[in-house]
Amino acid sequence: MTITNNTTGWTVQEWKKFHSESTPDHSYQVLSDLLSSLAVAPADPAWISICTKSELKHQWAILQSKSDKHKLPLYGVPVAIKDNIDVKDFETTAACPSFKYSPERDSTVAKLLKNAGAIIIGKTNLDQFATGLVGTRSPYGKTPCVFSDQHVSGGSSAGSASVVARGLVPLALGTDTAGSGRVPAMLNNLIGLKPSRGLLSCSGVVPACKSLDCVSIFSTNISDAQLALDILAQPDTENDQYSSSFPSNPLLKFPTTAHSPLKIAVPSELPWYGEVENELLYKNAILDFKNNLNCQIDSIDFAPLLELAKCLYEGPWVVERYVATKEFFQSNPPSESIDPAVSSIIASSKKFTAEDCFNFEYKRQAILQKVNQIISKYPVLIVPTAPLNPTFDQIAQQPIQVNSQQGTWTNFVNLADLSALSIPTGFKINGLPFGITLISQKFNDYALLNLASQYLSALHPNRFIGSLKHKLIGDADKLISNIPKPDLSKSIKLAVVGAHLTGFELHWQLEICNASFIAETKSSSNYKLYALPKTGPVAKPGLRRVGPTESGKEITLEIYSVPIENFGKFISLVPEPLGIGSVELKSGEWVKSFICEEIGYLQKGTKDITEYGGWRNYIESTQALSKAKKKPF
Amino acid sequence: MTITNNTTGWTVQEWKKFHSESTPDHSYQVLSDLLSSLAVAPADPAWISICTKSELKHQWAILQSKSDKHKLPLYGVPVAIKDNIDVKDFETTAACPSFKYSPERDSTVAKLLKNAGAIIIGKTNLDQFATGLVGTRSPYGKTPCVFSDQHVSGGSSAGSASVVARGLVPLALGTDTAGSGRVPAMLNNLIGLKPSRGLLSCSGVVPACKSLDCVSIFSTNISDAQLALDILAQPDTENDQYSSSFPSNPLLKFPTTAHSPLKIAVPSELPWYGEVENELLYKNAILDFKNNLNCQIDSIDFAPLLELAKCLYEGPWVVERYVATKEFFQSNPPSESIDPAVSSIIASSKKFTAEDCFNFEYKRQAILQKVNQIISKYPVLIVPTAPLNPTFDQIAQQPIQVNSQQGTWTNFVNLADLSALSIPTGFKINGLPFGITLISQKFNDYALLNLASQYLSALHPNRFIGSLKHKLIGDADKLISNIPKPDLSKSIKLAVVGAHLTGFELHWQLEICNASFIAETKSSSNYKLYALPKTGPVAKPGLRRVGPTESGKEITLEIYSVPIENFGKFISLVPEPLGIGSVELKSGEWVKSFICEEIGYLQKGTKDITEYGGWRNYIESTQALSKAKKKPF
Repeated sequence: MTITNNTTGWTVQEWKKFHSESTPDHSYQVLSDLLSSLAVAPADPAWISICTKSELKHQWAILQSKSDKHKLPLYGVPVAIKDNIDVKDFETTAACPSFKYSPERDSTVAKLLKNAGAIIIGKTNLDQFATGLVGTRSPYGKTPCVFSDQHVSGGSSAGSASVVARGLVPLALGTDTAGSGRVPAMLNNLIGLKPSRGLLSCSGVVPACKSLDCVSIFSTNISDAQLALDILAQPDTENDQYSSSFPSNPLLKFPTTAHSPLKIAVPSELPWYGEVENELLYKNAILDFKNNLNCQIDSIDFAPLLELAKCLYEGPWVVERYVATKEFFQSNPPSESIDPAVSSIIASSKKFTAEDCFNFEYKRQAILQKVNQIISKYPVLIVPTAPLNPTFDQIAQQPIQVNSQQGTWTNFVNLADLSALSIPTGFKINGLPFGITLISQKFNDYALLNLASQYLSALHPNRFIGSLKHKLIGDADKLISNIPKPDLSKSIKLAVVGAHLTGFELHWQLEICNASFIAETKSSSNYKLYALPKTGPVAKPGLRRVGPTESGKEITLEIYSVPIENFGKFISLVPEPLGIGSVELKSGEWVKSFICEEIGYLQKGTKDITEYGGWRNYIESTQALSKAKKKPF
Repeated sequence: MTITNNTTGWTVQEWKKFHSESTPDHSYQVLSDLLSSLAVAPADPAWISICTKSELKHQWAILQSKSDKHKLPLYGVPVAIKDNIDVKDFETTAACPSFKYSPERDSTVAKLLKNAGAIIIGKTNLDQFATGLVGTRSPYGKTPCVFSDQHVSGGSSAGSASVVARGLVPLALGTDTAGSGRVPAMLNNLIGLKPSRGLLSCSGVVPACKSLDCVSIFSTNISDAQLALDILAQPDTENDQYSSSFPSNPLLKFPTTAHSPLKIAVPSELPWYGEVENELLYKNAILDFKNNLNCQIDSIDFAPLLELAKCLYEGPWVVERYVATKEFFQSNPPSESIDPAVSSIIASSKKFTAEDCFNFEYKRQAILQKVNQIISKYPVLIVPTAPLNPTFDQIAQQPIQVNSQQGTWTNFVNLADLSALSIPTGFKINGLPFGITLISQKFNDYALLNLASQYLSALHPNRFIGSLKHKLIGDADKLISNIPKPDLSKSIKLAVVGAHLTGFELHWQLEICNASFIAETKSSSNYKLYALPKTGPVAKPGLRRVGPTESGKEITLEIYSVPIENFGKFISLVPEPLGIGSVELKSGEWVKSFICEEIGYLQKGTKDITEYGGWRNYIESTQALSKAKKKPF
């Protein structure tokens, strides 16, 4: 059987659609053919290992044995995993042949991917022990970026970025301690999500700096990253001492109103190390945010963040790399298996004392006081992901300096415990990509995806993905609705009746309260609806429950889930004669709802609009009427 | 002039009352006489230094120059400060004569006390460099507890506890890294508040372990501690990298209802090191909580907390003590000025490497995952403050062991970033006091004071304070209302009308939402009030705003400040036909308020009770009526 489907560049949704329309045998065959088309290092330095045919068969058989398998969010989707993350039946090398071991169990993230239906097709190359931002520090080969064999893929997650950007798999996991999940995303025209520390378990991951490490997500588009985050962000406190959980209803969207744009900070001074075009691409991207997305851009002094970044290289955090590899290095491994840059970095940890650890921690805490002031004023920071698209030659000539320059805007993020998302913004004349990173406080990961979705959908609606110039983005940068699912146990169901309905003037009040749409429905038939006399800029209805001797009608409502801690903010925006009480739905359920004091609908000028069955119908009919009236003129 | 007032044992309120009824000259004379009555070490080992008459005059003159000085919360109140906290015009010794220096400025806490009107009358003795829980490690002398010259005052804040317990001053500051603010509180029958880390600035405090240090509060009673906390908890992020702030409306009271008591965890196993009576006192205190205070007591395994405590002594945190005193010890100070136990502890830090720092931090984080599980299930833990009342002889014989035993229940608290409050619970037959410590998560300091106030007011209403057997507590363990002031910018003002009024059946719903009472007031005269037909266990009114042609009446309301993030919780408890809308007050202000759907007061059986002017009047009149009716029987 030959490949009947060219899977190159398929998004998660395209893979799922294919499988849903395919027979299991055909599905398997396509995965098998994909696998046959792959080569490992040195032929393709992006892959350190790929699964054997029998392992693929095994994974497929397990997937087929699951009940409701077609409902799994990653059913049959091939994914790649950086080779410092354990996957059972693969060896873990961390890009060091002599370090190699066969893990007894899946890392937590690999297990979650498999539970979600994914097929783990291979393990990818990296800067050895995830030490580097260049992607060249590996005995398995130096991974080029997908646009040029003279330029690096970036690191440390070089291989994961390469295989996604070439469209071999839609998703890959990396790790990101100092920028390893963001720099390769930029250099390969990808989305690189560095989730808030602890959201994705590091259990089963070879530590780089255990106190800072994050598992990161590479995808070609926003919706795939959003889906992966939803699947992977699971608490794992028993296995990972740094594991943490989203608050019950994480922020979905940065709140803005017509009068209060999103405040974004950008660095007032940026070192470009001689790079000219990326500077321009960066400025243009910032202008795009300013001019198209209801954002206020302020240039501010990033000195505290840069000072924090310096701590990472000057301070004792490198000792964590030593702690993680101590036993291995004490075993006198063969020198040809060790990258000299990596071993010299790890060896440099010897100079640090316990005193240094505390002194640098004091220093970090003092800087964090300043960082927190910035973050409390600016919900979002935007920086270049990296300043440069380095060549292999440049790295060879100045291995440490270029590496350090590339980390200018990534190094501080985990030391400050922030969330970060690298997104593509355009290309240099030579076809190499540039990217920016959106940064926000911890647990704003979904809000960052939302902002990126707005930007990319509005400014780059026809962008191509990865290196596939024929493969346009389509709807894949648009968010999937209801991911994450609202936590109904920590929310209040609210029925809205009038100006808060989707598309109406006060709908933003639900948005700034981080509310999620649940359903459109109707009240029981015990209600009347009135158009209240317009006293301000916004027309509003009043809902009235009728008595037993009166007849009402079912009124159309929209139900939202409002996080319980934001309900006060919402109600503070509700003026008299309206209030929040309870409404009986046609299902018999009672939910919180707008109600109206009697004095509201007894006012002169009130109109009974019950017959319309809802505010939207009434407004549309008056608009139709007013259009009709206007026609003669 | 002789002492006309015996100030011994005066609480803050008594000092303030005296000053408010006194002339400035007389006030000054009394403070001056107090000062004259004091002696410093070696005569009184509790004081390392006291202020000179001219310094007192100077402080008094500054106070007199302030506008509205009589409104200051600590006007003219003498306080003592542990001698590792800088106060201008006093030398700071940290109980090490050769370490002595003259600070150029006040520590932040000293400045806040002075700004609040306090007179800093002296500096108190401590275990050198705050290293110890015994109070005997000082060249300035060994402070005995106030009940026995054979028994230690405890440490390290030995002197501060002694001078408060003897009633010389109503308030003193200590520091508390591993228990130094709690152990001496127990041994001297005091309140010892170890605030959440960072709430009280450590700027101008000689560090012990900078990442863990807290300034602590000693008082004889709860209300003085509450007031001091309110004055001292001020952010100081520029000067203290560990400075933090309360959330906008910190928890005032642990929420309980008739059906959900406060869940308290106590250790299932307690080492008593041979002590018998304290064990009994502890058990009785726990029983008192269980039987008298709507608490559910669960014995649980405290292993994670004890493991954390061990980290403090076995791990590298002692390196912080070395960092803090390094320069001093490198100057080869005279050996007679150094306590040998303290110097050997600090010297022990040399064995720790940078690797140890990270490994112990990993260990701590893993333990904290387990601690957080306990804390999320149990809002309060209750432990013995310390197991023993050691004698000087016992300390001399086993200086390290007794010190370590005393820290069993205190050592873990700052490593887990918790709040803690030590309170007295009774006395042994030999007259020595015992105490327990209430522990809760960060920022629950006020809720701990509330719980302690309930316990002490209910179970020990006639206790004496400190060592002053003639001086009974009176109302001083009762909380001062409206401390802390609610943050109105982060709250919603809510008018309640009926069953939520103080003393009525649903008032608890305000309490569990951390609401603060603001005022009783009346609505505008545009309202009518109805007694709704009773459909459940609780009778409720409905408030109705009348139209322009109808006449209403002013209705009595109570206004509460509900933290905005808890308003959703509140509204979720409000059933139809009631809701939350807005009410016009007689002042013309509109605030959120209960409103009622028309269908509510149109029900059969509804009674217009507007003439009563409020729900309380109506209910009281019906009760009077029903009593009157019952009389004949």
